[in-house]
Amino acid sequence: MESEIFVIEEAMRTIIERQAACFPVVEGSLPIYHVLSYHLGWLDEQFQPTGVSSGKRFRPLLCLRACTAAGGTWQQAAWIAAAIELLHNFTLIHDDIQDRSLTRRHRPTVWAVWGDAQAINAGDALFGLSQLAALEAASQLEAARGMELLSRLNETVLRIVEGQVLDLSFESLDAVTKDAYFVMIERKTAQLTAYAAWAGAMVAGASSELAARFADFGRALGLAFQVHDDYLGVWGDPLQTGKARGDDLRRRKKSLPILILLERASPDDRAWIRSTWRSEHDLDPVTVERLLKLLAQYDVEAAMKETVWRLHAEAQARLDQLGLPVERTAPLRAIVERLAVREG
Amino acid sequence: MESEIFVIEEAMRTIIERQAACFPVVEGSLPIYHVLSYHLGWLDEQFQPTGVSSGKRFRPLLCLRACTAAGGTWQQAAWIAAAIELLHNFTLIHDDIQDRSLTRRHRPTVWAVWGDAQAINAGDALFGLSQLAALEAASQLEAARGMELLSRLNETVLRIVEGQVLDLSFESLDAVTKDAYFVMIERKTAQLTAYAAWAGAMVAGASSELAARFADFGRALGLAFQVHDDYLGVWGDPLQTGKARGDDLRRRKKSLPILILLERASPDDRAWIRSTWRSEHDLDPVTVERLLKLLAQYDVEAAMKETVWRLHAEAQARLDQLGLPVERTAPLRAIVERLAVREG
Repeated sequence: MESEIFVIEEAMRTIIERQAACFPVVEGSLPIYHVLSYHLGWLDEQFQPTGVSSGKRFRPLLCLRACTAAGGTWQQAAWIAAAIELLHNFTLIHDDIQDRSLTRRHRPTVWAVWGDAQAINAGDALFGLSQLAALEAASQLEAARGMELLSRLNETVLRIVEGQVLDLSFESLDAVTKDAYFVMIERKTAQLTAYAAWAGAMVAGASSELAARFADFGRALGLAFQVHDDYLGVWGDPLQTGKARGDDLRRRKKSLPILILLERASPDDRAWIRSTWRSEHDLDPVTVERLLKLLAQYDVEAAMKETVWRLHAEAQARLDQLGLPVERTAPLRAIVERLAVREG
Repeated sequence: MESEIFVIEEAMRTIIERQAACFPVVEGSLPIYHVLSYHLGWLDEQFQPTGVSSGKRFRPLLCLRACTAAGGTWQQAAWIAAAIELLHNFTLIHDDIQDRSLTRRHRPTVWAVWGDAQAINAGDALFGLSQLAALEAASQLEAARGMELLSRLNETVLRIVEGQVLDLSFESLDAVTKDAYFVMIERKTAQLTAYAAWAGAMVAGASSELAARFADFGRALGLAFQVHDDYLGVWGDPLQTGKARGDDLRRRKKSLPILILLERASPDDRAWIRSTWRSEHDLDPVTVERLLKLLAQYDVEAAMKETVWRLHAEAQARLDQLGLPVERTAPLRAIVERLAVREG
């Protein structure tokens, strides 16, 4: 895994450095490409090397391993994997502004350090850089396949933005159904993992039929990942997640635990839960504790664990349905297994 | 011009409607594609058709006419012209958030109606849509030319973001030189007009050499356009510009008039001008009036008029340097002439 990550980081770095070389020296101006390197974990707030990387890089890894599973080599997937990770990070920077999140990966978010306006720029820059990485990938393919890689990448962007639009819309709604929640996370999270697996197969030269099965696998894995995230957002260990216990409750996020709770709660409890959403602010610790007690009372943790388990099993099944030799798919299986037991 | 605009609007509409068809029906969610149509002037705040279009569409028109000047037809340039206008509007939506601008084209800005978070999404969506339009354009060209069209589009995006980074950085600087200002507007404004002229020529099949001269023309026109904008931002007629008289002064923008004033002012006046920048808020009417008086005292309006005139003449000269028959370049000349006398 070390060398796979190295290939991904190098591809991202190359794309960023080419453009950073064009940035004019104007005294007092924010070095925006350094801000991107901060977000990606390469530099600290004073723009000094951190010596470590950050982020799980799970999406580009999925792409690389889909490529080898489909009969290609890592190297063939390096540019498109970099494009996927750059794209993902563009959405993270903008999400953090929208959600007013102060920390990410145990460090202050870009907007928290440099303000909303420059954080919007940082996200926009990563979007453009992601396209340039994807163009490198496309230029190594036969023309029609290259164009498909690019079209689908941008359709995926629109689906992700739609997911974020829904997520934000849910904040001011009293009634959000589980169905609506799954429509939202399918777009916000699973479309990009579907793309990562699909694109890995495509650059390896897979047929449309095989690539579509890779997309199904990636989509299933993305759904499992997001529901697991929702689990950790309530019951995760603060030391592992980097977030306070019950953080999603405090922030009044309509994540899956709360939607399951609403389905199960008595009318009185349900009315009280909804009343907490009408607050303009984060919830106080007493209210969060009362929500945690209700979640325990209605057995929501067990239901969440069951759902997380079922969705990971579904991803495994989709992997089996690729119909590829087990030694080719083993590295992908390792991703599923690692994600299924993650605690942060 | 009517039918040229029609071609551009139709191409933009087609790209948007294809993706809007994928947006899920979830009760209570913001119809984000309608928000884009609002921004583009097609719908009102209640998402009812306005019956009119809005925006000058000057960049896509430049692209269409560059295409015909280089020997192509309008239709060849429709997709890339649409991509350029969608891209431009993505930057406008994000700029309006960053600048806290309440109105654009005499209507409330997207963030002012739907909030910052959804406005960030709206800009991101237009960015993705712009790429999809550019992919349509690229798919009609020989592969290498298509890839060049796309690479350069995304390099242009990065230059525009860099320009915006500089512009925002200038807000907190005491000393901004005219040189730094021109570096900033070359990126923020002139790179896209350069791309528009270059891309029009490229889709017409122009040689790299000829396309590069189109880019030089587009760049010169962009610089003239931006300096003219700075002129109108201080002395423009509110009825024409849709902004209050002296609006750029009120908002403490370090536009060219104020930089020229700083060069010419006495040390005392200069110190006073700089002191106004330290305010956290927009300037009050009395301070704006005093700045207008200083601009008059130091003859800045005449200097600005001279600069606007000189930059438009430079654009005309670049147009002549294309070395094309006058009947082919006449529609481009008409753009330069119309822009040179615009009052809003």
